Amino acid sequence: MSTFGQKYRVTTFGESHSKAVGCVIDGFPSNFKIDQDALQYQLNRRRPGQTKLTTQRDEKDKAIIISGLNTQHLTLGSPIMIMVYNEDMRPQDYKQFDDIPRPGHADFTYQMKYEIRAESGGGRSSARETIGRVCGGAIAQQYLSQMNVSISAWVSSVGNIEIPKEVQQQLILNPPTQDQIEEVNAKYQFRNPHQESALEMVKLIEQVKLDKDSIGGTVTCVIKGCPIGLGEPCFDKFQAVLAHAIMSIPATKGFEFGSGFEGTKQRGSAHNDRFKNLKPITNNAGGTLGGITNGENIYFKVAFKPVSTIGLEQETSNFKGEDIILEAHGRHDPCVVSRAVPVVESMAAIVVLDLYLLSKQK
Amino acid sequence: MSTFGQKYRVTTFGESHSKAVGCVIDGFPSNFKIDQDALQYQLNRRRPGQTKLTTQRDEKDKAIIISGLNTQHLTLGSPIMIMVYNEDMRPQDYKQFDDIPRPGHADFTYQMKYEIRAESGGGRSSARETIGRVCGGAIAQQYLSQMNVSISAWVSSVGNIEIPKEVQQQLILNPPTQDQIEEVNAKYQFRNPHQESALEMVKLIEQVKLDKDSIGGTVTCVIKGCPIGLGEPCFDKFQAVLAHAIMSIPATKGFEFGSGFEGTKQRGSAHNDRFKNLKPITNNAGGTLGGITNGENIYFKVAFKPVSTIGLEQETSNFKGEDIILEAHGRHDPCVVSRAVPVVESMAAIVVLDLYLLSKQK
Amino acid sequence: MSTFGQKYRVTTFGESHSKAVGCVIDGFPSNFKIDQDALQYQLNRRRPGQTKLTTQRDEKDKAIIISGLNTQHLTLGSPIMIMVYNEDMRPQDYKQFDDIPRPGHADFTYQMKYEIRAESGGGRSSARETIGRVCGGAIAQQYLSQMNVSISAWVSSVGNIEIPKEVQQQLILNPPTQDQIEEVNAKYQFRNPHQESALEMVKLIEQVKLDKDSIGGTVTCVIKGCPIGLGEPCFDKFQAVLAHAIMSIPATKGFEFGSGFEGTKQRGSAHNDRFKNLKPITNNAGGTLGGITNGENIYFKVAFKPVSTIGLEQETSNFKGEDIILEAHGRHDPCVVSRAVPVVESMAAIVVLDLYLLSKQK
Amino acid sequence: MSTFGQKYRVTTFGESHSKAVGCVIDGFPSNFKIDQDALQYQLNRRRPGQTKLTTQRDEKDKAIIISGLNTQHLTLGSPIMIMVYNEDMRPQDYKQFDDIPRPGHADFTYQMKYEIRAESGGGRSSARETIGRVCGGAIAQQYLSQMNVSISAWVSSVGNIEIPKEVQQQLILNPPTQDQIEEVNAKYQFRNPHQESALEMVKLIEQVKLDKDSIGGTVTCVIKGCPIGLGEPCFDKFQAVLAHAIMSIPATKGFEFGSGFEGTKQRGSAHNDRFKNLKPITNNAGGTLGGITNGENIYFKVAFKPVSTIGLEQETSNFKGEDIILEAHGRHDPCVVSRAVPVVESMAAIVVLDLYLLSKQK
Repeated sequence: MSTFGQKYRVTTFGESHSKAVGCVIDGFPSNFKIDQDALQYQLNRRRPGQTKLTTQRDEKDKAIIISGLNTQHLTLGSPIMIMVYNEDMRPQDYKQFDDIPRPGHADFTYQMKYEIRAESGGGRSSARETIGRVCGGAIAQQYLSQMNVSISAWVSSVGNIEIPKEVQQQLILNPPTQDQIEEVNAKYQFRNPHQESALEMVKLIEQVKLDKDSIGGTVTCVIKGCPIGLGEPCFDKFQAVLAHAIMSIPATKGFEFGSGFEGTKQRGSAHNDRFKNLKPITNNAGGTLGGITNGENIYFKVAFKPVSTIGLEQETSNFKGEDIILEAHGRHDPCVVSRAVPVVESMAAIVVLDLYLLSKQK
Repeated sequence: MSTFGQKYRVTTFGESHSKAVGCVIDGFPSNFKIDQDALQYQLNRRRPGQTKLTTQRDEKDKAIIISGLNTQHLTLGSPIMIMVYNEDMRPQDYKQFDDIPRPGHADFTYQMKYEIRAESGGGRSSARETIGRVCGGAIAQQYLSQMNVSISAWVSSVGNIEIPKEVQQQLILNPPTQDQIEEVNAKYQFRNPHQESALEMVKLIEQVKLDKDSIGGTVTCVIKGCPIGLGEPCFDKFQAVLAHAIMSIPATKGFEFGSGFEGTKQRGSAHNDRFKNLKPITNNAGGTLGGITNGENIYFKVAFKPVSTIGLEQETSNFKGEDIILEAHGRHDPCVVSRAVPVVESMAAIVVLDLYLLSKQK
Repeated sequence: MSTFGQKYRVTTFGESHSKAVGCVIDGFPSNFKIDQDALQYQLNRRRPGQTKLTTQRDEKDKAIIISGLNTQHLTLGSPIMIMVYNEDMRPQDYKQFDDIPRPGHADFTYQMKYEIRAESGGGRSSARETIGRVCGGAIAQQYLSQMNVSISAWVSSVGNIEIPKEVQQQLILNPPTQDQIEEVNAKYQFRNPHQESALEMVKLIEQVKLDKDSIGGTVTCVIKGCPIGLGEPCFDKFQAVLAHAIMSIPATKGFEFGSGFEGTKQRGSAHNDRFKNLKPITNNAGGTLGGITNGENIYFKVAFKPVSTIGLEQETSNFKGEDIILEAHGRHDPCVVSRAVPVVESMAAIVVLDLYLLSKQK
Repeated sequence: MSTFGQKYRVTTFGESHSKAVGCVIDGFPSNFKIDQDALQYQLNRRRPGQTKLTTQRDEKDKAIIISGLNTQHLTLGSPIMIMVYNEDMRPQDYKQFDDIPRPGHADFTYQMKYEIRAESGGGRSSARETIGRVCGGAIAQQYLSQMNVSISAWVSSVGNIEIPKEVQQQLILNPPTQDQIEEVNAKYQFRNPHQESALEMVKLIEQVKLDKDSIGGTVTCVIKGCPIGLGEPCFDKFQAVLAHAIMSIPATKGFEFGSGFEGTKQRGSAHNDRFKNLKPITNNAGGTLGGITNGENIYFKVAFKPVSTIGLEQETSNFKGEDIILEAHGRHDPCVVSRAVPVVESMAAIVVLDLYLLSKQK
């Protein structure tokens, strides 16, 4: 289904070429002032076409709040519907794919499951679907903000280029704010607060773009100030619900929580976060114990595959099974990780607010 | 909540020292013959205490099917309740922890969230909770089996010791059956079908045990024969629901689907699985496109942290915040990955059957 | 929450004075041609202001399908968002109520629950919320129609005036189609196919209107052609889910299924529907056995209270607890039952399609 | 599905002849002392065979709490599993029905839906399924009790015999406690606090029993002390969720909330509950406004059809469609309303606790 969350529920709608995309948010607390500018700020961060590195599609992506607020922008406790018109549609860019299941794309499986596909482009699998997620996350972040919960993410690797380990550890301990990351982004056109590796990443992506190819990367995210007690003991452990949310973002291939795969190489005596004054002195756990938040910084890393749409010719087959050569015209992003940053933050925000609202019981 | 799934729903109950643990399975198709031996076989696989490597607790873990079947063991379409008595309880082993939040354990967060904890041991966070999961997974596997869907997992690494990359790739292409893995297990006391690395892993774990310490590892799982079309485009992508299920298993720290974190280093031209005769010639995707199964083998890897309970002394604090030295007496596993194999398979089976039943619409 | 259904899910949004009202429909089968005119037809039936009996507010209520269809109006399997702009807003009509919890209205409870209310009118409790329901029901009915399931409802009583018992029984056996009811409506300005009682009802309502008062009534609904097997044995019996849906319609006070309250006076020997050739010869059950549809006509009756907004002066108190006299200016309906007919049908259609889609399992 | 509730979730399991019946309760607040006697008291109230009026089956129905409590009977926040063994099974009583879909029973629809039925008796449709409901309701009532919410129900009619209207109105205003009703029950063997009509009802039922027939009736229930603010504006109005719960009880045919069907005959000027000092001076609404509780007594009435199992011969057909004569041997209840009282109270309690826990948000 197209709904995420149990008490803070976000239902997204829209395809790449429908009249609009957006979401209905249900369960947001009442009598809270919504900041429309802060919402638009998040949509602008998500928007492609801002830098020379990313796709040139100029989507203005103006959020229109249709329902749920009174005239003073106070929430009424009723569903908040937000939508963004699809303005810059170029169906002709997709005509060539009518008969071809693009490698790495959803064309093949959508056709098999639904016996129909959107005539042009990804339809529901388009990155524009993430607009609804960012709206839901932006509204959640406004509420979390006044609880002093802050969420920020950055690009931690592109291809083989990584932020140095010690720098990354420092960033996890003391994460930059979203605003600080945007300052960096304004400078290097990239959301990596470590200048040296950022410049290398940008250089690599430019090369990949010249090669008409694409490249993957990782995003690291930290949630600071999360209340103790979110998550449930069994199936709805904090990290399990978070993994669900994060692995639902298009192009994700992996999720690490706390020490992650590196942690498997450690011994228990080193990995255990011992308490001092009832506070853990290390944070290999990543902010939960037994699936429930413990008040420490929550951190996780997400793997994004290289974008499937590339300019290079690809030998593949059409729906009839005939060999063909596919060459994508039109725009494409050589790397989505920088742009994925606000989407990752948004899904994290949705999870935190949902589990927070669920945790209230007395 | 303690329920997983939408149409095939598994609700687990029980703490380490309650009268019993088990599950209620709702939504299983009617008029299907349940094989009680096959159910018990899975519980036996999960059971610790079988080898010199694992904990010595002798839990007989006999599954009792309380409801949902007629006298011929045919399912009635009503909830199937299965329970296993907790027989070998040693509360005295846990007395020492009454006042101490054990590092890496759920003691601290449970106490904060619930203002109470089970008097002895992990309570709900105990590994015995996975009995309900294995029951739910065992029943699901019986149904999947007659659809020719098979699921099998193995240990792919312990600490720094890994199955060699090419061997691992071959195993993913042609996974051993569960029975084949059990044959291996009978021989090396370990669920790794690659003899050389298996022996090294066993040696490492023996050393860790001597050191009164613990070590982490990874499990790789392959789902073969999964129908095309499972999973939903947006939040309930196949891999997102699977990540939720897998990251809810105790001690997990990471989840990789298909090419995983390695895939982030590739270029799109290499990563894209091109079609030949409408069938992908590679499988970096891991068995889904756009979040929907494409008929290829589904594979994923799971990170397990080193077990938190260790025999070594640990400096930590008690609930009053006072410095203390903690030394766990009694039994403990130095490494859980081999024993986690049937739990991983079970959660995968629950997800596949649930999404399969959900996918029926006309 | 604002969502109804498990597999066919309708999420409504919008308040009486927000930019728009509408719904997101999730789970509708793909590759099905949507008839926009048939959708608009249902919205027109719901629309007030068509007759001299009802409110004069001229809401054009044009449905705009924002997402979920391709250019040929075929469903894509993705969420269908439909919205209707709120055009004819007269906030000044509601200014007088700013400080007064109107008797029978939601003002008091909304204020207590949410600590805020929409500045004007009912907000979320307005009858305009039913637009989303009718959109969801209209789309469901298009699918049910090609399965030969038809749903129709009519006014069975207003105040003390009822359709004669034998006539009512005949109508339940051979229900008029929606089109036939609309023909009647065109003639008498009322949705009661029994001319004599219809004219009396209209006369009564005219009198009530002159008296600046309001009056209640009942609606009877029949579902014809419903497949056998819908509904679940325990909590989700067909009639239980239906009761939930129907009792969520504003102003409802009662729900009878099959023989209803009259059935409590019968003896089992008379009430039991005996089989002849494995088909029940009577239908006191109302179309289900054990909560599961048995293929017979499903029928139920709904009680609607008299509308709370009346022109007559009412002694009541304001939010400060001070005695005041309330006199509602502006438009109001003296009786909503005729207008409620398509809303009842819509909720029934949503339930049938949802339980139908849920019943698919192999 | 076999689960009711969103935050207080009750999942029932068991058929009439499975090893046990019972439920898993999830979401109950932690650190609350469970009174096992109070739980057993409710099961005893539900138990048939106590009076000369009801079935003679001697089910001891001892509740066993399997999980969720510590040794001091304090809840741990984990699922509470409660079960009751099926001891007094007489499959021979049901042999005769193997080939016959009993009129009024679920045999026909279960066979059609599931292609299988329990070999003996009602299976999942048996009244024993209500044991799980009563367990869930009994636990809920313990929590509600300390919030000063009390729930009590009584028989308001049997066949044509009703509690006089004015008496009934007084009972709704000042409902007897459950204990008071049990005192009455001890005296007249019937749960109707109005002596005169109670004796008549008992007499009628005795006659019906002599006639080997059965008779229906109604139960009225009052919830006192319910907090303001429970229920949601749209689909999950308090009365809608309650109707769902109540209409899921076997043999129910109707549900009235507040003024019910009688209210449809009133004018708005009479029906509106005007405020005095911000408190309604009447209670036609029945305790909610706009679907949200307003702090007044909540009251509703439930219709129960005559029991389907009767001793009288019935002409009907078998599954092959052949004419046969059916005569039920063995025990049967001529009227279930008195015994249904604790089941109605239980479902009401489950709804109130669930909506209460859901309403917490800040």
